[in-house]
Amino acid sequence: MSQKMMIIDTDCGIDDALAIMLALSSSNVKILGINCCFGNTDVDNVCKNVLRVLSVCQRTEIPVFRGAASCLVGTSKQSKIHFGTDGLGDVLQDKDPDEWKTKIQKEHAVNSLIRLVNENPGQVSLVALGPLTNLALAVRMDPSISNKLEGLYIMGGNQEGKGNMTPCAEFNFLMDPESAYVVLEEYVCPTHIATWEFACRNKLSWEFFDEMVNQDTAAARFMKTITSKCPAYSREPGNKPGDILFGSGFVSYDAYAMAACVDGSVITESVEYAVCVEIQGELSRGMMVLDVTGQLKSNRVFLMKSCDLTKFSSLLMNSLKQP
Amino acid sequence: MSQKMMIIDTDCGIDDALAIMLALSSSNVKILGINCCFGNTDVDNVCKNVLRVLSVCQRTEIPVFRGAASCLVGTSKQSKIHFGTDGLGDVLQDKDPDEWKTKIQKEHAVNSLIRLVNENPGQVSLVALGPLTNLALAVRMDPSISNKLEGLYIMGGNQEGKGNMTPCAEFNFLMDPESAYVVLEEYVCPTHIATWEFACRNKLSWEFFDEMVNQDTAAARFMKTITSKCPAYSREPGNKPGDILFGSGFVSYDAYAMAACVDGSVITESVEYAVCVEIQGELSRGMMVLDVTGQLKSNRVFLMKSCDLTKFSSLLMNSLKQP
Amino acid sequence: MSQKMMIIDTDCGIDDALAIMLALSSSNVKILGINCCFGNTDVDNVCKNVLRVLSVCQRTEIPVFRGAASCLVGTSKQSKIHFGTDGLGDVLQDKDPDEWKTKIQKEHAVNSLIRLVNENPGQVSLVALGPLTNLALAVRMDPSISNKLEGLYIMGGNQEGKGNMTPCAEFNFLMDPESAYVVLEEYVCPTHIATWEFACRNKLSWEFFDEMVNQDTAAARFMKTITSKCPAYSREPGNKPGDILFGSGFVSYDAYAMAACVDGSVITESVEYAVCVEIQGELSRGMMVLDVTGQLKSNRVFLMKSCDLTKFSSLLMNSLKQP
Amino acid sequence: MSQKMMIIDTDCGIDDALAIMLALSSSNVKILGINCCFGNTDVDNVCKNVLRVLSVCQRTEIPVFRGAASCLVGTSKQSKIHFGTDGLGDVLQDKDPDEWKTKIQKEHAVNSLIRLVNENPGQVSLVALGPLTNLALAVRMDPSISNKLEGLYIMGGNQEGKGNMTPCAEFNFLMDPESAYVVLEEYVCPTHIATWEFACRNKLSWEFFDEMVNQDTAAARFMKTITSKCPAYSREPGNKPGDILFGSGFVSYDAYAMAACVDGSVITESVEYAVCVEIQGELSRGMMVLDVTGQLKSNRVFLMKSCDLTKFSSLLMNSLKQP
Repeated sequence: MSQKMMIIDTDCGIDDALAIMLALSSSNVKILGINCCFGNTDVDNVCKNVLRVLSVCQRTEIPVFRGAASCLVGTSKQSKIHFGTDGLGDVLQDKDPDEWKTKIQKEHAVNSLIRLVNENPGQVSLVALGPLTNLALAVRMDPSISNKLEGLYIMGGNQEGKGNMTPCAEFNFLMDPESAYVVLEEYVCPTHIATWEFACRNKLSWEFFDEMVNQDTAAARFMKTITSKCPAYSREPGNKPGDILFGSGFVSYDAYAMAACVDGSVITESVEYAVCVEIQGELSRGMMVLDVTGQLKSNRVFLMKSCDLTKFSSLLMNSLKQP
Repeated sequence: MSQKMMIIDTDCGIDDALAIMLALSSSNVKILGINCCFGNTDVDNVCKNVLRVLSVCQRTEIPVFRGAASCLVGTSKQSKIHFGTDGLGDVLQDKDPDEWKTKIQKEHAVNSLIRLVNENPGQVSLVALGPLTNLALAVRMDPSISNKLEGLYIMGGNQEGKGNMTPCAEFNFLMDPESAYVVLEEYVCPTHIATWEFACRNKLSWEFFDEMVNQDTAAARFMKTITSKCPAYSREPGNKPGDILFGSGFVSYDAYAMAACVDGSVITESVEYAVCVEIQGELSRGMMVLDVTGQLKSNRVFLMKSCDLTKFSSLLMNSLKQP
Repeated sequence: MSQKMMIIDTDCGIDDALAIMLALSSSNVKILGINCCFGNTDVDNVCKNVLRVLSVCQRTEIPVFRGAASCLVGTSKQSKIHFGTDGLGDVLQDKDPDEWKTKIQKEHAVNSLIRLVNENPGQVSLVALGPLTNLALAVRMDPSISNKLEGLYIMGGNQEGKGNMTPCAEFNFLMDPESAYVVLEEYVCPTHIATWEFACRNKLSWEFFDEMVNQDTAAARFMKTITSKCPAYSREPGNKPGDILFGSGFVSYDAYAMAACVDGSVITESVEYAVCVEIQGELSRGMMVLDVTGQLKSNRVFLMKSCDLTKFSSLLMNSLKQP
Repeated sequence: MSQKMMIIDTDCGIDDALAIMLALSSSNVKILGINCCFGNTDVDNVCKNVLRVLSVCQRTEIPVFRGAASCLVGTSKQSKIHFGTDGLGDVLQDKDPDEWKTKIQKEHAVNSLIRLVNENPGQVSLVALGPLTNLALAVRMDPSISNKLEGLYIMGGNQEGKGNMTPCAEFNFLMDPESAYVVLEEYVCPTHIATWEFACRNKLSWEFFDEMVNQDTAAARFMKTITSKCPAYSREPGNKPGDILFGSGFVSYDAYAMAACVDGSVITESVEYAVCVEIQGELSRGMMVLDVTGQLKSNRVFLMKSCDLTKFSSLLMNSLKQP
């Protein structure tokens, strides 16, 4: 069976790391490259983090590309650090802090994306786990790529007007609303979105999390380590928007978009909507807008609605059975 | 038992008419005045319509006040006429088109509201069924009224980022976003809101509607007449946003806010949120924003969540047993 | 000769005081009322200040009306106090701080404006020296007044994209951009505007100022007192936007609009433009926009362009020859 | 004497063509490359037009790079065509419409800009004559270039709140407000701007224009041809904003920025301001904002204020003495 070609775009925090491991553990996926973007931490840390994940999984042959260091238009106001300042829980240490630079490809992530998509027209699936800056820059550099992807899988945005960063915006979209706007307007390939509310509504139990990270593998030990002191993985009843609105639990945001790409049957129901991103609002900047009125001439995307949690759990459990 | 003092502010379309009748049929309510505002139709038609309702119910002793003819800041862009150009289904005719002017109070609705609230501090419940322009003007003229109401009951806004006029705005709020903003910011009395999604989620059946309007009373005959040719009361499976998102049925929007004021036990569950209105957005102008992040310093309001449909149906059925 | 009927709307700071004195000193003007609005200080202080000016000039027969205490929509962010916290240089003291309340009319300024204009259609000139909140509220309460004024004279706005409060907004308009927007859109009477740049370009010398306030009259002594410790009347080469852009000098902003009403020949050239106010901008909120492209369907107004400084100086000098 | 290294970024319309000829005629300038951007016409036509200019001037050794086809975020709404649909007056015809594609470099303009600036740090002057999309994309791809330019010369924006496209926006900035915003925020090299009003205030006479294009050279004949039927070069007293505000005449917008780079002594006075671009406004989107209040933390740029018209005229006359 032929493998599915995949490019991953990531702002590698802890949940990105798990999603990348999910892809690495999937035999039917061939990862052409991993593109780095600012987001959970600065883009240099993101590069380091991706290389760490590949090293843990002994998959350092996969090329990693450095991409956007800031959002498309304004200045990113990152008010919350979900996963520590380094994106991986602030527990790892480097012997040589600059060694990563020798392992990063010279080609810019945006150019790499354009090249790989053009070399494999209609065959590449792109999984975007962070702010969409690299995707926006790429489509502005080469508009032709917008319909050369087999599919685009995005973790980001929201669908009920609620948010985790501001009252109505989700982290990935809020970090670069203009790029989210551009991507949703320009990419005309089949687009599948796991929104914030979808992820929250499909949370898993902390018992499952414990079982997953306590497996006797390098990947599991790595995941256990980086989540050990991270408040996002505390079970304390918190006052996080997600907890308040949907109850607490283990929500591995990025894994839903990745799982949907790796095995489409994980998503048991999707709804198709024209969507757009609000970039002008004072309160709602960064919000994803769904249109049932037919007023927007935007692209239609598939919003994931229902998830086979058994399959999803199985994929996650398997992700950490590495190397 | 003492009666509850009520002022009604309305842009009297068909569902306002039913809500007013609900109040008229409630023995525990004393209506101090009915204030007219543009909205479903122009403010002159609204005045006519309120007077018609009072006439049908033989309650012409209740004073009716003319209020705002347009929204607070810009120009109202009324793109849809729900209930005909005259607001009551375009089936009624006047012998003397100007007779209503002799029956309207000379006092402006805004001045009447200020006066009545100051005369009865802490005792008046205000039920707002249209754009909130009169309420905004009043609180700007006399800020002291904001905490002199016993309660404020509003039909308007939304809570899931969906809308019936634009992709994310509801009619009453969109007709005057700035007034909605002002009212939610300034009125610090207990405020109860029946949002668009709440109303849609608590729709009744068309069978109930038929039974209601086929009662042998003047009020029922009036309601049957004005709904007879109105597309909003067509059972055809439509492509209205409410039908698409929540299924079709009989949704008497304004009646929920009125019922909540007349008999608080109709609402079996409410949730308390800080809320605000987006007035700057390009896509989301007029949307009500809920805040669980604690970032907004807005007033907290009660959003109706669950409704005792048996009680509610009973109130509606009773509304048309007049005179 | 019949007198010109005038209503003054003011947020009485020091330059308003001088403009009011200019009107009081004009034998051809009959002041029907003075309406108070928040602005240079809170509306209660404004009421006090107007009563003080009338007392100094022995004209306490003129009725004074309390108006808007805040801007139409949002919250006024008054970051600079030009004329002290009390608006008159923080040097005056009251024996009885509440005495002013007995001298203020019971009628609200907005209702007074509506009444007086309707009682004297086509005969009243309205001179607006502060935020335009009262004017906006009045036209929303009674749209018919918009064409019943003989003329409207406004100090406010800008015409070259420069500002004294933000990079491109002037104080009076910025204090209530929505009201400025409403007034410029709705008032269709002949409208004459003295913008910030016009005033700055027609500054007078500090020598003139000294001569003016050193006259042996109660009014001059009052003006000398209230300007004595006010930084706005310091001759120090400052870093105020007006000084930087146009050079320093004595700029009595409100007096230009008042003089134009009292004696039209003071303004030797005006230009007619369609104008509008930006209310959505992040940088330019509150800016007045001139349109030569013909794209805006806004009202046309007269922007004062050239001033007979000899006549203007003479009017100012005469203003303080009271009582 | 060493030559000044120059990169030109252009949306080659007629006035761009003249500005490019000005550079080609300057012996002290070495043009490293010409980058094409959409603007006066689509980017393919821009490529053709630049190649035509180089061909006329027999300078086809200069590499031409294709760049952005659309603005950074939204959709360009090009409501006016100044120089015909093809950007050069709609009078030229191609034997082989696709021949230009063989002459365009394979490298994208954005990558070329990044490469050339990094190869020659501190030595390259960049002259930007169109929308600033390529510059914005480049600095997002490689932020390090922002301080590696010797100088940046821009034709675009405005400084008095007036515009030629909308009431307060100029063509080049309005075509891509977000890119203008990014460039002014990010490029920290010495930046010199010729605004729309500056150009209009330094117009030349139509007599000069006639003398210029009637020279017996290939370049002059080319310029005479492409302006022959173009309304922008009509002497009819028009109702163009520039004519209305500043009087009619020959305004070769792009030539001012180019002249300032080629010979700094052409600009006899500049003023230094912190500037920013309004991207949120409804009326003022695309306007350049000058800040004398010190509130903006933006970069400071040099706005050209006075021009030595004799020198400028001489440069223009010389531009057409080719080949």
